[in-house]
Amino acid sequence: MNRAEPLGVAVLGAGRMGADHVRRIAEVIGGARVAAVADVDAARAEAVAAGVAGCAAYPDPVAAMDDPGVDAVLIASPGPAHEAALLAALERRLPVLCEKPLTPDAAAALRIVHAEAALGRRLIQVGFMRRYDADFQRLKALLAGGEQGRTLLLRCTHRNASTLPGFTDAMLVNDSVVHEIDTARWLLGQEITAVTVHRPRPSGRAPRGLGDPQLLVFETDAGVLVDVEIFVSCGFGYQVRCEAVNEGGTARVGDDGHLFLNAAGRWGGVIPGEFTERFADAYDREVRAWVAAVRAGRAEGPSAWDGYAAAAVCEAALRAQREGGRVTVESAGRPALYEGA
Amino acid sequence: MNRAEPLGVAVLGAGRMGADHVRRIAEVIGGARVAAVADVDAARAEAVAAGVAGCAAYPDPVAAMDDPGVDAVLIASPGPAHEAALLAALERRLPVLCEKPLTPDAAAALRIVHAEAALGRRLIQVGFMRRYDADFQRLKALLAGGEQGRTLLLRCTHRNASTLPGFTDAMLVNDSVVHEIDTARWLLGQEITAVTVHRPRPSGRAPRGLGDPQLLVFETDAGVLVDVEIFVSCGFGYQVRCEAVNEGGTARVGDDGHLFLNAAGRWGGVIPGEFTERFADAYDREVRAWVAAVRAGRAEGPSAWDGYAAAAVCEAALRAQREGGRVTVESAGRPALYEGA
Amino acid sequence: MNRAEPLGVAVLGAGRMGADHVRRIAEVIGGARVAAVADVDAARAEAVAAGVAGCAAYPDPVAAMDDPGVDAVLIASPGPAHEAALLAALERRLPVLCEKPLTPDAAAALRIVHAEAALGRRLIQVGFMRRYDADFQRLKALLAGGEQGRTLLLRCTHRNASTLPGFTDAMLVNDSVVHEIDTARWLLGQEITAVTVHRPRPSGRAPRGLGDPQLLVFETDAGVLVDVEIFVSCGFGYQVRCEAVNEGGTARVGDDGHLFLNAAGRWGGVIPGEFTERFADAYDREVRAWVAAVRAGRAEGPSAWDGYAAAAVCEAALRAQREGGRVTVESAGRPALYEGA
Amino acid sequence: MNRAEPLGVAVLGAGRMGADHVRRIAEVIGGARVAAVADVDAARAEAVAAGVAGCAAYPDPVAAMDDPGVDAVLIASPGPAHEAALLAALERRLPVLCEKPLTPDAAAALRIVHAEAALGRRLIQVGFMRRYDADFQRLKALLAGGEQGRTLLLRCTHRNASTLPGFTDAMLVNDSVVHEIDTARWLLGQEITAVTVHRPRPSGRAPRGLGDPQLLVFETDAGVLVDVEIFVSCGFGYQVRCEAVNEGGTARVGDDGHLFLNAAGRWGGVIPGEFTERFADAYDREVRAWVAAVRAGRAEGPSAWDGYAAAAVCEAALRAQREGGRVTVESAGRPALYEGA
Repeated sequence: MNRAEPLGVAVLGAGRMGADHVRRIAEVIGGARVAAVADVDAARAEAVAAGVAGCAAYPDPVAAMDDPGVDAVLIASPGPAHEAALLAALERRLPVLCEKPLTPDAAAALRIVHAEAALGRRLIQVGFMRRYDADFQRLKALLAGGEQGRTLLLRCTHRNASTLPGFTDAMLVNDSVVHEIDTARWLLGQEITAVTVHRPRPSGRAPRGLGDPQLLVFETDAGVLVDVEIFVSCGFGYQVRCEAVNEGGTARVGDDGHLFLNAAGRWGGVIPGEFTERFADAYDREVRAWVAAVRAGRAEGPSAWDGYAAAAVCEAALRAQREGGRVTVESAGRPALYEGA
Repeated sequence: MNRAEPLGVAVLGAGRMGADHVRRIAEVIGGARVAAVADVDAARAEAVAAGVAGCAAYPDPVAAMDDPGVDAVLIASPGPAHEAALLAALERRLPVLCEKPLTPDAAAALRIVHAEAALGRRLIQVGFMRRYDADFQRLKALLAGGEQGRTLLLRCTHRNASTLPGFTDAMLVNDSVVHEIDTARWLLGQEITAVTVHRPRPSGRAPRGLGDPQLLVFETDAGVLVDVEIFVSCGFGYQVRCEAVNEGGTARVGDDGHLFLNAAGRWGGVIPGEFTERFADAYDREVRAWVAAVRAGRAEGPSAWDGYAAAAVCEAALRAQREGGRVTVESAGRPALYEGA
Repeated sequence: MNRAEPLGVAVLGAGRMGADHVRRIAEVIGGARVAAVADVDAARAEAVAAGVAGCAAYPDPVAAMDDPGVDAVLIASPGPAHEAALLAALERRLPVLCEKPLTPDAAAALRIVHAEAALGRRLIQVGFMRRYDADFQRLKALLAGGEQGRTLLLRCTHRNASTLPGFTDAMLVNDSVVHEIDTARWLLGQEITAVTVHRPRPSGRAPRGLGDPQLLVFETDAGVLVDVEIFVSCGFGYQVRCEAVNEGGTARVGDDGHLFLNAAGRWGGVIPGEFTERFADAYDREVRAWVAAVRAGRAEGPSAWDGYAAAAVCEAALRAQREGGRVTVESAGRPALYEGA
Repeated sequence: MNRAEPLGVAVLGAGRMGADHVRRIAEVIGGARVAAVADVDAARAEAVAAGVAGCAAYPDPVAAMDDPGVDAVLIASPGPAHEAALLAALERRLPVLCEKPLTPDAAAALRIVHAEAALGRRLIQVGFMRRYDADFQRLKALLAGGEQGRTLLLRCTHRNASTLPGFTDAMLVNDSVVHEIDTARWLLGQEITAVTVHRPRPSGRAPRGLGDPQLLVFETDAGVLVDVEIFVSCGFGYQVRCEAVNEGGTARVGDDGHLFLNAAGRWGGVIPGEFTERFADAYDREVRAWVAAVRAGRAEGPSAWDGYAAAAVCEAALRAQREGGRVTVESAGRPALYEGA
């Protein structure tokens, strides 16, 4: 590509998430343009493409990648479609930003890892957008700076106001706790090796059949403990909190309020209702950073290995939920391509 | 008095404040006992005295002071009765804790100051209980420690949920802002020399005829500015805040919440409804410190001079309210007895 | 005793804690006086007694209880001396405030429980002073009020700046986590039935041989989970935090700062160095409440059963520390005397 | 312009602020491109233009506006050059985003207002970027929602760590307090009618000749008071705070910390050093909103009238600084074009 020209992006999937990325590339961030949109629902692809100058619509994701204006791919289709799209992109040497999960299970993720490793260069970035949140970046910088010494505990809280009926124990791990899994790996630079799940009585507000809240305790290969309170029917809003307990102090993000109120016997502030509100800026930063890296010929951000590693930990957590006790994580070896990343 | 025996206190006034002090001396603090209670309403005095072993009741305050078990006097009668009681106590060389105001006006306060100065020893402590609040004491210690350099501004907020009908502009100064006047003098160790009153449109919740809130700006003899937001019908609770803006940083008390809640889209805590809740511990500390000082033969705490100085500033503030513009404080000279206190 | 007279207290133990209670009864709180002090070190008992009018010194605790001026007993001697002193007090029908632990182990505590139950009336209060902290009382009132529904999780943090060399894993439980054990039982009104201990790598600042920090997860008979971060060599100060996660919101105490500073690129406040600073008021309230209850002929506060229950949970936690995995608590039945308390 | 094409912007001024806007348009935001850069220092213009594909460099601002690729103008040249550039843009009917101040004085600003009013349509937006800060927008929404009733006071704090030597009393108003002037007008939807300046002793850290801090009290045409602490050599960082005191509660922005630390006896967080750090997102949002509005053919944001109104209040504040007392603001009538904006 001509570096002076905007990056031509094919967006795969024109659902809620895909359409939002199209809007982001077209209106919010710079340096890129949407060259093609693909969706199995051709009408939906066309409706989204119609709002963007010079954007073609395709029912087939591979055809979209082959559009002559395409320099890179953003995958926002349902999880089961990811593997085929990722392999096609790798074949074409196209950089990819793939919404989480990389694939629905660890085995498929490992196939992607091996395919990319075989190419000998990184092309894939996984959409763990929390790494792009300004507050988490401040926390990461503080830990990396070393002023508080080694981290011993990571204490995490993840609360959603409510979920849809039909939300399951497995979704609790795969859709929600997966963020803490990646956050912990990223903040600590360590791999998770075991997990225990503690389950209190469920809230009366939890969907039928869901054990909510739960308390998960992860162990890393360096002996750090990560405990996660996950509570997806807390009722009062969306709240994410993470405190690193270090040898020389602690550091915490979350909980802070931007608007402080006094009213009717109460001081305090407002809790956002949705993760889209809390992490809106993180999504913008994520896609902007990806565009800038691709244009500069660099590979940054969460890798396919990060996608695989999260999937492997999720599988262990699911077994701990079902069977109780402490379950060790079974992980493949990390290919040399991902060393030091 | 025998220092091993508890201090015998005559409490003058058996109304709400007097009865509360009787309870405090009898049940909460150590080292003292209520030896006599006086109230012009003899039945009320007797009812309060009946609950305390060895406590006599009197309709006449001077008779109560002359009870053989009395070592010290606590004045909690209405302000107009203070001057006579104070002079009688001085005559008998009895230590006094006098609820604020020392007297209703500056001229009477000055007569008390001169009477005490003529004795050549301090016997009177005025009930500015905010000096005994643990947080204000922390602020005072920080400023005294000098780590943040000289103070330039003192920014104060004083809010009450509501007042009784009939609350006037003068009461706003004499009953409410008088606390900031004493606090400023005490924290800074400076005298207030001028005052300006700024008046916004009044709240629709303010009692008829009351200009509420108001913003008062005081100047000290060392050139520090003290601004006070007074808002006695703020509706949401009782809140006192004070930030010292210093050359090397700022320090603030108030605003902190002890119980932190997440609920229904809001984070935050509870605002107390009344000053009695906010400053309950300060009253206990105040009377305990007075008892300990008297038993040790010391005179500490806010002096008659502090009572006079506050009254003189209040008179200037009332004129600034009525006439607008900047009004200078007219103060008598400080007798040698009060130097360095 | 004559209710108009102050309560005559025998203080057993004239070490740091005992001497502090003598000071508290003599100078800080009302309604009681120190009638006798006992210590095996007779000189130490005499030195402490000498500062208090009408106070006798004894080398023998039972002799102190038999002093004619004694109405009640405060035990502040070392834990191994508690059982004999408690039994002697029960024999004499003297109300007792016993510093924690009730006894060093659960078996001895159970003997005390049975002895008191045989008398058919409560005479013993255990010194779990955190129940008297104003913030924890606010939290208890909120949970009892039911506005946030049932509690599901209790998330606790307990940090000390440092410990003495020689501090052991067992002391971590018996001296530190025992406070969270009692707090959880009291806040929830539930018994703890099982415990798991998670251990991260220890801090380089921990004393040799101590696994610090640790993460303990308790389960109650109603299915609530209580997780406790205990970190006794955190380095930065003393910090106690407790968040109740309820069906309709969360409520937290701890973390709040009284003095808020801006200085040199940082906003924030001061962390106290010691529990004595953080809980000074709680000790005062505890002893005052005990004196008032005894004078009124009532038995309130943490009971001998509470002392036993905490000891039984500690024993399970110690086994979980040593052996790993989940350990159930073995508890004797609760005598009828303690029902509903 | 073709709405599907990016907006071609001429950036006037290639200094620090202009270069930053070039970077923002080229790399951060979408929908626009830098078509031309002008600077009297031709080499500087060329250096900046060289980094952007398809961008021409000019020494003359009018020539840059006449570049065929230009659809709109962003003025980031020194204040004295603004009037000529604005008039040239108006003549060409080009939409303009003009960095504050609109012009260096109220008389020139009024000439701009009249020139735009004569055209009968709004083309000018002034760079009061605080209106684009997410927290201030939350505060504005809350006040507009009316849930807390009418505003009575606006209490503002504006602190900078330090200034350059040579910073004057006039710059304190024109460069710093001008933000609070615009914020107050915007939040309240009212005009400022009078101002009083209170001056404490200056900080020893203030540049020679500067009276710093100062306390300004503004009055609005609806009777609201706005007090502003301005302290440009506070030493500890950059801090902006604004509390609206309303009839039914208060609402505040500022002071909140994103990263919360426990370390060495202190809890708290970090204060940014510079306004560029605090308001980085606001600048992005401002330019993005301007680009979107221009492309949609709308005129939004702070108008030339807002620029004039701020200048008129500044002139009154400068007189109040010099002469003392209360100074009324002399303002021209608001042309119909700006009604309701």
